[in-house]
Order: sequence, then structure tokens, then C-alpha cells
Amino acid sequence: MRAFLIIGNKAVTKPFKLNDLPGAGRIDILCRCVAQALFVSHGIRRDVEVYLLLLGPPEPPKAVKITGYEVRRMSPDERNIAGHLRKALSFKADENWREVGSGVYISKKGLVDLLEELSKRYEIYYLREDGRDIRSLAKSMRNPLFILGDHIGVKGEDEEVVMRYARELVCVSPLSLQADQCIVIVHYELDRI
Amino acid sequence: MRAFLIIGNKAVTKPFKLNDLPGAGRIDILCRCVAQALFVSHGIRRDVEVYLLLLGPPEPPKAVKITGYEVRRMSPDERNIAGHLRKALSFKADENWREVGSGVYISKKGLVDLLEELSKRYEIYYLREDGRDIRSLAKSMRNPLFILGDHIGVKGEDEEVVMRYARELVCVSPLSLQADQCIVIVHYELDRI
Repeated sequence: MRAFLIIGNKAVTKPFKLNDLPGAGRIDILCRCVAQALFVSHGIRRDVEVYLLLLGPPEPPKAVKITGYEVRRMSPDERNIAGHLRKALSFKADENWREVGSGVYISKKGLVDLLEELSKRYEIYYLREDGRDIRSLAKSMRNPLFILGDHIGVKGEDEEVVMRYARELVCVSPLSLQADQCIVIVHYELDRI
Repeated sequence: MRAFLIIGNKAVTKPFKLNDLPGAGRIDILCRCVAQALFVSHGIRRDVEVYLLLLGPPEPPKAVKITGYEVRRMSPDERNIAGHLRKALSFKADENWREVGSGVYISKKGLVDLLEELSKRYEIYYLREDGRDIRSLAKSMRNPLFILGDHIGVKGEDEEVVMRYARELVCVSPLSLQADQCIVIVHYELDRI
């Protein structure tokens, strides 16, 4: 299994307009991350889970989980994925995962709750530009989960939490890339092994 | 310089609805390709040109050129890029490039015209799954242009044309990936050199 956790620092926690995804706290970034984590040509990676942590108004935090082995009727365009997220945000969320569509879940979990749960099943890696080269680490990874920030990155207090759970800092490029591009490269390096 | 030419086999050649990019002949794929070719975190790759060949109804072919060193007011979400393409398609096109916005051009050029022009400035590489590994080739590339198909690929007659101009077939992954994912990997391998 592989997993990705993307932190949306401003991503809204209520249903939003599909015609302005950047204006919904950069939900567009999260949609692209979901697409790049789950899709290949004409198919879905069934061995992938995606976690989105939404920290924007009005009711942060909320977490969305999408499982590649269960998800249905999703296509890789931003608007389609945004529709799934908007639907998920229309349901009441509590501390447990609630399935709101095939393979799409919502909860009120925050970063600590998420990492407490996920660290039992995954090796946690934190993607940061000063980390170790993914190419030298990929071979040794078993059930990795990669944590990424959005355009803002990962804020100080959240980074402290992440560092408590992270096995290693990982770098994926000599350039500073967008989160979805990092996901493509992580998959690529793991696929080559 | 680096360049990408993406062939949109069904991509419409007139202004389309921004609320249904997949229904416009998979314009969503072309938008994602533009985003991945041009954008890095908080910036644009100024040394990149993107060419889109639109082969859908009602007036194929049309070609759009976007230059990283000139483009302005573009953001990486699909809807924003689609807005630029829709605007370009609202202008009359002829055999020459016509600038319709900062760094965005349209013409009636077809595949042969495009490759005749581009092969004077670029080494042409054709991305296909049975090609040579990008990792072994990247070092020797000078001003490469990469040709990619959309979800349909590159049709037989077009492929014959491409093969006349291509210096080499290149493969970017052991899996069959989406065109925009291939672009990310091409950049990644070239950035690492």
C-alpha cells in the first residue's frame, strides 16, 4: 500500500462553489493531488489511499479519506473530484470515519488523530526540500505514507506534530515543486523498483 | 529550452463551456498538461513552450502555443487554463501564429506544419511506452521537444508523421500513465541533471 496525506491550510470545511475552487481555500490543489495519487492511464491505483486534512473555515479540522480500492465514478478532472469533496462536506462529521460515497469518507479528525491512526499501518515520510533524496530511499520503503503541504506548506505547529511521527524527511526534486507534482514523482520512483 | 506538443484527438476547435471540460473533447487533459509543463511551486518555467494540437470539431486542426517566458495571469487550475484556451478559440486563426493574450497564440497549423517549424529549433522525441528509458537519455538531450497523445494516444496516420521527425522514442515509466504525469516525469529527469 501507498498513501498520501495533504494538508490544506485554508481549504474550506463546508460545501463550496465548483466554479471557484481556488477561492475555496485552494481546493483545486487538493483535487490535483487526489488525481495524481489515484489515477493512471485508463485506471485507478487500487493500492493507494489519499487523506486530505482541511483546515479552513468554518469548522476545521475535517479530514477526507479516499480509497483507491473502493472509489467509483471518479474521474481525474478537478471539477469531478471537487464534486466528491463538496458532497462529503455536506454530511455531518464526527470523530469516526463516515462513508459518504463509494470509497469516500469524512471525519472531524485532526492532524494528531490522523497520524496516530495512520502510523499503525504506514511508515510516515515527510516531503520537504531539505530531506533525503527519494531515489536513494525508495527501495527500502514498505507501506509508505507521504505528508505534503499545499501552497503554504506545513505550518510550524503542525510540522512539530509531523516530525514526531515521521521516520524520515524526503526530497523529490532539486526544484521547489507543487504538491501534485511531488506525488507523481513519488509514484514514479516507487514504480521503477 | 524545453517544449511539449500534446495532441488532443477530439479537443474542440471552438469556444466551449468551462463547466464541462471533459465534454469538450477532453480539454481537461490538455489543461493539466499545460499546468504540469509550465508551473512549479509559486512560479512558471520561463524556458518552456507548450503546443496543443486540437483535432476535434468543428474546424480542425487548430494549434495553440503558450510560451513560459511571456505568459501572464495564468494559474495552474484547470478552469483558469481552460479560460485562456477558450479565449484563444474565439479568435480567427490562419496559417500564422496570432497572439491572442500574453504568451498565448493560435493558428490553423496542422501536425506537419507544426513539426516542420519546430524541428528547426528542437530535437523531437516521441513519448511511447516501448521507447528508450528517459533516464538513460536525459543527459544527452539538447532543446528537446516531447510529443504526447491524449487519452486516445496518437493515431496511426499522425504517428507516421511523428516518426518522420522523431529522433528517438522515449519511455517514462513502467506503468501506462496520463499525459500530464509523463510531463512531470520528463521535467524531473531533466531537472536532476
